[in-house]
Amino acid sequence: MNFKKLQNILPAGFKASGISSGIKKSGKKDLALFVSDSPSVCAAMMTSNDFKAAPLLVSAEHLSRGKVRALIANSGNANCMTGKRGMSNARAMAAGVAGFLRTKPEEVLVASTGIIGKQLPLPKIRQGLPLLMKELSAGGLKDAASAIMTTDTFPKHISLCSKICGKTVTVSSTAKGAGMIAPKMKTGTLLAFSFTDAAIEKSALMEALSEAVDVSFNAITIDGCMSTNDMAVVMANGKAGNRLIKKGTAEARIFKKMLTQCCLDLAKLIVRDAEGATKFIEVRVAGALNESRAKELAFRVADSNLFKCAMYGNDPNWGRIAAALGSAGLGLESAKMNIKLNGVDVFRAGKPAAFKAKGLLAGNNVIVDIVLGKGHGRATVYTCDLSRDYVKINADYN
Amino acid sequence: MNFKKLQNILPAGFKASGISSGIKKSGKKDLALFVSDSPSVCAAMMTSNDFKAAPLLVSAEHLSRGKVRALIANSGNANCMTGKRGMSNARAMAAGVAGFLRTKPEEVLVASTGIIGKQLPLPKIRQGLPLLMKELSAGGLKDAASAIMTTDTFPKHISLCSKICGKTVTVSSTAKGAGMIAPKMKTGTLLAFSFTDAAIEKSALMEALSEAVDVSFNAITIDGCMSTNDMAVVMANGKAGNRLIKKGTAEARIFKKMLTQCCLDLAKLIVRDAEGATKFIEVRVAGALNESRAKELAFRVADSNLFKCAMYGNDPNWGRIAAALGSAGLGLESAKMNIKLNGVDVFRAGKPAAFKAKGLLAGNNVIVDIVLGKGHGRATVYTCDLSRDYVKINADYN
Repeated sequence: MNFKKLQNILPAGFKASGISSGIKKSGKKDLALFVSDSPSVCAAMMTSNDFKAAPLLVSAEHLSRGKVRALIANSGNANCMTGKRGMSNARAMAAGVAGFLRTKPEEVLVASTGIIGKQLPLPKIRQGLPLLMKELSAGGLKDAASAIMTTDTFPKHISLCSKICGKTVTVSSTAKGAGMIAPKMKTGTLLAFSFTDAAIEKSALMEALSEAVDVSFNAITIDGCMSTNDMAVVMANGKAGNRLIKKGTAEARIFKKMLTQCCLDLAKLIVRDAEGATKFIEVRVAGALNESRAKELAFRVADSNLFKCAMYGNDPNWGRIAAALGSAGLGLESAKMNIKLNGVDVFRAGKPAAFKAKGLLAGNNVIVDIVLGKGHGRATVYTCDLSRDYVKINADYN
Repeated sequence: MNFKKLQNILPAGFKASGISSGIKKSGKKDLALFVSDSPSVCAAMMTSNDFKAAPLLVSAEHLSRGKVRALIANSGNANCMTGKRGMSNARAMAAGVAGFLRTKPEEVLVASTGIIGKQLPLPKIRQGLPLLMKELSAGGLKDAASAIMTTDTFPKHISLCSKICGKTVTVSSTAKGAGMIAPKMKTGTLLAFSFTDAAIEKSALMEALSEAVDVSFNAITIDGCMSTNDMAVVMANGKAGNRLIKKGTAEARIFKKMLTQCCLDLAKLIVRDAEGATKFIEVRVAGALNESRAKELAFRVADSNLFKCAMYGNDPNWGRIAAALGSAGLGLESAKMNIKLNGVDVFRAGKPAAFKAKGLLAGNNVIVDIVLGKGHGRATVYTCDLSRDYVKINADYN
């Protein structure tokens, strides 16, 4: 299905802004706000890390109360492992926005990203709020996307629209992330915010988010490191005027596809912008016993430092792929297995294949095709190579 | 317990040698042989990777037949993912040694390490055998240790002795490994060969090996990448003349301690020699629900690329430690948790501690102490930092 792509446009009834409040020493944008004119149905997924950051705990509380009007997010500080003071700072962020919007703090969600273990500079955020409110506009998506960046090198956002029951429905999404990106977040991901003017039931919205995240943000890995602050949110304010989308209907499927495309495009951009990366790598597994095993095996390869270093070195050392697959201990059989690199057989039915190594990995894109001969499960995972610059960036991070 | 350390000495009745047979293009030593004068009781542990290399499959077959006289090992080629030809090459290596020793091929074990997916240059190994036999000597441990090296920068071996029931019992161990070193090898490890003149029951020998490997080779991680060729072997020929050591006795405990010390010393040397490493890191977890959870959590930290990069950058960014611990999803509570870096509190009972970051990680050794307040489980895991040189070494490996 092809959806129409829009430039930096938010769905009807949504505004966004992004400013510099001084949290980042660099003076770059670090505070973002997303506001709906009217209360929105909201679905969210959060990291399964034990040490959920304060903004996630506060947002989870607020989500359980009902509809949502706004989402405030800061970069430069994760407000995680910050104890009671961290919790009260996160509440104060929500309350600050609620004051301006003349609504309840419970209608405001909070997200943070940045260094762990430092207290938020709350006075700076408070001082920034009037400008943040003033800057709100229907064209503010890009500014907000910029304000949630950490080591990202470019802002990531997308807007798609489609007719649903005769009405134009728009979905806009923004995400950030360049490191600490990992799988196994059964119920969470990085910072990824979506907004839609669709009228949709909460249960249908949650299902759409869950399935979209599963094949997008939860199908990428940069360094196998799970964050404490991962959060995916979708807000739906119903302003498109469509008939309410209910779970399990054809309309719910169209909406889910639109949200999935937004999330997948952003997930791929995150991998392309990965810390130090020089290659975009797609690991496709087919013929696994089932889909979840296919995904597990694809992640084994995508998370292998040795594989990622070989890719960085343009080395088609498929032994690194085999060793990673076998490490899962799932009873794979080499005699049934085929591996291709960029379409070329490198291992076929138990035996190394003769192939021309030179130039095979010269480009910026690598496709690894693995066929296991165990069943019909298939999955695709996206990752990048491990470069010397990744190490440099993370050695010099703090 | 303190054992006496010996220099490059093998237990009574053992000889070893290491030569260059031309498998490695560099001309460095690449073929090692260990021989016992008489049949030895033998215990072994192997990788749990699905794609066990041909030498492991052949050795497992031979081990099931009974006692063992010799072990031949090559570096420069893993003989893995090499199909039927790989199996027949591994058998030919065993048969070649058996011919010289006038024994059955089943009494010879085989091990290989090096690149995956290339056929062994069997003619070179055959041509090397006469010299390998000729060089056998009681002082050949160091040469053999050199011949099993891949990206290792120095040979690793140790010999300890102790009185058991009035007789001097010696244990000698050698090991190799600098990359593709990972946990979760429930029944396996890297190449680690031990030899003893103790008279000991097979079940007691197996128990000693299993417990020794558990706290040594299975408690280290360099890159989280599990190999297809990991193998730990211990051969005992009884030449010390001691009364047979039986499982569960005081003598078995002394023997186990001696073997454990050999393995732990070598495991630490492997971490010190890790590819590109600049720091030796000890991650100690205490107060976990049980020992296995303590080890799992210690590995979460030790395998975190972000943690390892921070250590490389002398950055006491303990948020990386907390994020890694929380990623296991074991229900940890920050309020009960303490983290120390090199003895200095950095996080205490739910709150960041004030500490002087400068100089804290300046040395080559880092000790991370994590106390969880959940129970009495404790474990120590050894690892290294992730440096730009690790990436370079593995990008240029092939």
